[in-house]
Amino acid sequence: MTSTLSVFALGGLYEIGKNMYAIEYEDDIIVIDCGNKFPDESLLGIDLIIPDITYLQENKDRVRAIIVTHGHEDHIGGIPYLLKKINMPVYATRFTLGLIEIKLKEHRILRESELHEIHSDSQLQLGKINVSFFKVNHSIPDCLGIVFDTPEGTVVHTGDFKFDLTPANQEQPEIHKMAQVGNKGVLLLLSESTNAERKGFTPSEQMVGENLENMIMRSRQKVIVSTFASNISRVQQVVEASEKTNRKVVLLGRSMVNVVGVALDRGYLTAPKEMFIEADEIDDYPPEKVTILCTGSQGEPGAALSRLSTGNFRGVDILAGDTVILAAGPIPGNEKNVSVIIDNLYMLGANVIYGSGSSSGMHVSGHGYQEDLKLMLTLMKPKYFIPIHGEYRMLHHHRQLAQSVGVEKENIFILNNGDVVDIEDSIARSTRTIPAGSTYVDGIDVGNMEFVLRDRKQISEDGMLMLILTMSKPDARMLAEPEIISRGFVDKNFSELRKGIIKIIHNTVEELHEENRYSWNTKKKNIKRLVAKYVKDRTRKSPMIIPILIEV
Amino acid sequence: MTSTLSVFALGGLYEIGKNMYAIEYEDDIIVIDCGNKFPDESLLGIDLIIPDITYLQENKDRVRAIIVTHGHEDHIGGIPYLLKKINMPVYATRFTLGLIEIKLKEHRILRESELHEIHSDSQLQLGKINVSFFKVNHSIPDCLGIVFDTPEGTVVHTGDFKFDLTPANQEQPEIHKMAQVGNKGVLLLLSESTNAERKGFTPSEQMVGENLENMIMRSRQKVIVSTFASNISRVQQVVEASEKTNRKVVLLGRSMVNVVGVALDRGYLTAPKEMFIEADEIDDYPPEKVTILCTGSQGEPGAALSRLSTGNFRGVDILAGDTVILAAGPIPGNEKNVSVIIDNLYMLGANVIYGSGSSSGMHVSGHGYQEDLKLMLTLMKPKYFIPIHGEYRMLHHHRQLAQSVGVEKENIFILNNGDVVDIEDSIARSTRTIPAGSTYVDGIDVGNMEFVLRDRKQISEDGMLMLILTMSKPDARMLAEPEIISRGFVDKNFSELRKGIIKIIHNTVEELHEENRYSWNTKKKNIKRLVAKYVKDRTRKSPMIIPILIEV
Repeated sequence: MTSTLSVFALGGLYEIGKNMYAIEYEDDIIVIDCGNKFPDESLLGIDLIIPDITYLQENKDRVRAIIVTHGHEDHIGGIPYLLKKINMPVYATRFTLGLIEIKLKEHRILRESELHEIHSDSQLQLGKINVSFFKVNHSIPDCLGIVFDTPEGTVVHTGDFKFDLTPANQEQPEIHKMAQVGNKGVLLLLSESTNAERKGFTPSEQMVGENLENMIMRSRQKVIVSTFASNISRVQQVVEASEKTNRKVVLLGRSMVNVVGVALDRGYLTAPKEMFIEADEIDDYPPEKVTILCTGSQGEPGAALSRLSTGNFRGVDILAGDTVILAAGPIPGNEKNVSVIIDNLYMLGANVIYGSGSSSGMHVSGHGYQEDLKLMLTLMKPKYFIPIHGEYRMLHHHRQLAQSVGVEKENIFILNNGDVVDIEDSIARSTRTIPAGSTYVDGIDVGNMEFVLRDRKQISEDGMLMLILTMSKPDARMLAEPEIISRGFVDKNFSELRKGIIKIIHNTVEELHEENRYSWNTKKKNIKRLVAKYVKDRTRKSPMIIPILIEV
Repeated sequence: MTSTLSVFALGGLYEIGKNMYAIEYEDDIIVIDCGNKFPDESLLGIDLIIPDITYLQENKDRVRAIIVTHGHEDHIGGIPYLLKKINMPVYATRFTLGLIEIKLKEHRILRESELHEIHSDSQLQLGKINVSFFKVNHSIPDCLGIVFDTPEGTVVHTGDFKFDLTPANQEQPEIHKMAQVGNKGVLLLLSESTNAERKGFTPSEQMVGENLENMIMRSRQKVIVSTFASNISRVQQVVEASEKTNRKVVLLGRSMVNVVGVALDRGYLTAPKEMFIEADEIDDYPPEKVTILCTGSQGEPGAALSRLSTGNFRGVDILAGDTVILAAGPIPGNEKNVSVIIDNLYMLGANVIYGSGSSSGMHVSGHGYQEDLKLMLTLMKPKYFIPIHGEYRMLHHHRQLAQSVGVEKENIFILNNGDVVDIEDSIARSTRTIPAGSTYVDGIDVGNMEFVLRDRKQISEDGMLMLILTMSKPDARMLAEPEIISRGFVDKNFSELRKGIIKIIHNTVEELHEENRYSWNTKKKNIKRLVAKYVKDRTRKSPMIIPILIEV
């Protein structure tokens, strides 16, 4: 009897965010990453979205471990929620572990978690699966691609990557190792697709360094650089340019302080301790001797840059002539928030350096463009290919790239979360699915919130009208005039509208009573329908109508 | 005694949208444009935003007319609301008037409106102000710049413009006229700033025509082109390419049918009537003989393209191999909605042509880039300059452009809506403001809705809890257990939470009664505060708390 090798995603397909993949062979399931995703505006009041892990809970006993490719939120943000449900060993590199530990501490489960540090030369035996690694470049230190050797063949997961041959942190991608893996034969490749729509090779991080340095050198006053805290290479380049110009560096924003702290502690950032000063020491130095490194490059309200731009950061002011560099392009969806900040900075008289994508020279993407993706496909020469990590159009373009370098069209699987690829005797098929979807986190509640969101949505658009009927318990007689209470709803002729509604309520109750129908449910249904229609006709609005019975 | 010439905006500054400017001299006020703006997600349920016209209402008797530069929504969308408050003559070109008439008909005020057709050689005498015009290029036909000759000097308003020397509709910009105006001397220029951040000259619409034609020629199946209905030049180019390839053209979407109708009726679009077929005739033709022109290029849910992309347009299917061209770049903020449509189209197997800005070759902007703006400034040689039509960063860059071609820095005014520039004896000052702001349109209600929005926002984020207390009127005794009703709020231990809330209510009422405090207001305030704190502590959420008293 032959066994089946199965591969699937619990998140990360048809979307950007909440990456979570798994590989399964006989009694062993290995999980790769567990990220979160931030909700769009339609998910009113939801804080976070994480993958649905029903399948893993049902197969708890076979889950051997989670291996984490790198420390970005969309790859580690769901780990605390996962570990609370299923305690499993976590394997990650030193820097990635540092970021995971911060999260586990916040959720108060650090002590009971089983964390293992790995590096790119580690070898793991998890059940019947042997696991090894190769270094890749991305926009955060210490990123891995993963090689799974199974009895059925080799599966490679790239993690997030680009090929940067002159990386700012001197960490070259392990191309020779990748070539070796490819030469030995890869049955299945899972490779990330974020930039599959973009032509050419990703520019090198080195370019950003040169531009940052030029700009910091030329500035005669304070320089404020905003970037992702996790982009330690860029932080390093800002630190070095500041060192050359004798500037002290101030870190603003919680995640900047946290992440740079981890990077310094663990040796991923090289900087003399005395270079860093606190925000309240800024005034002790002339403006041309200060660089501020801050969060908020995506325009997040409440983050450091946003507060600086409106003059609401206690003790730190942006003055006319200061230079503000947005060293990170806006992620799609964040353009508007970023624009507001740029406007505010100009109003303060600052010199603002920004631009979409790499057009300002102050940002390059951490995700490989088309030529990077083709290089990975060429190195790995996989028989089967699953493009991962992306919206459908990205997966679609990645499929075309794979075909262009020789992967057979019928051997490429565009999957959705929960679709399973089963490989048996070297033949791959995708015919079954497992549960997969979104789990919403709202406050401290985790779960399915669809009906709550539906209510929030209706009320948020047109408000609501509560109709409170006070009736005597014994004979269902109305004891007082119905109360009409509105929230989020306004009408210039409200008193007239109220009279109309009260009349409808009286008539409905009377008519039903004449027919000997006394149930509150029937009354409620009729009142709701008639009042909704009446309000819609008169105001063109559809507030939520909530009839409430008080029995005395 | 000398008189003052005043200029101000009621909308269009520090924003994109709801353009409305005015010029005032002694007893004459002339309004320029009255647009609308679409709300962002923070304005829950608001349909439209229009300028606050308090100042004009207070000076009704002096308002001579509104002159409209062109027919885009952000320049005409507020006109029906304006005319309902102040009936004034409307001056606009033939095409623009056609679009305004559609709106006035919808609002049922077409008959009582006073509409005057003008063209670029018209001359108007409005009080002491003489008005003349010059043609400009934009992305809609029949656009005007306006020249106001006042006793104090000449004021020029550019309208929206670019310089397209090979426009698709053969309507050249009247550069010689502009040069003449500049030569005679311009006291004050108001020029639009939308693309003041972009380097170079705007590409010509001709480029789009060539690319569209190539793509339509090469396609062996149905071609679907989505663009702004008002971009008649682009519609014309699609029609011509379809004619060359013997394709029939189908118009989908209400505004496409309306606007193309106006353009055909009034001679702005040249096409044989028999070229157009209805949606239900598509199946009578082979797929390579059909072009569909549709709305929805901004990803608007409910518009034609969105419905086509999900297979929800009755009678019209997009099939594998069809070509879909998005001949309009996404306006900032619409990127996400557009992406969803592209994903869906790829899932249907369509070949999708898209790209941001002009990168796909299927779109060019209608707003002049930096070199266009410098050309206008150079032609007009104004003494004073007010950059208009844009967010602050655009106005800021436009100021820098003006300085680069010789306008004195201190003669440039960056204004906000409501700021007034007064010119007396050729000296301009900006020292006073008039009321200006946003008026929200929600359903058929027009007005200030701030408190309603605040309620909607709180409920949309965390839901609400109604606490209904039934008390006897004479002695304020509780007649029943308080009712707790929630909407948009969920908690896994709700029954426990409910018990806690009820206990708080009982305690609060009791304690107040012991102190002989019986007023409902005091009870309400205390209950609200204590329950909110209790719920926040237990759930980390802040639903709106609504205590309601029922007295029997």
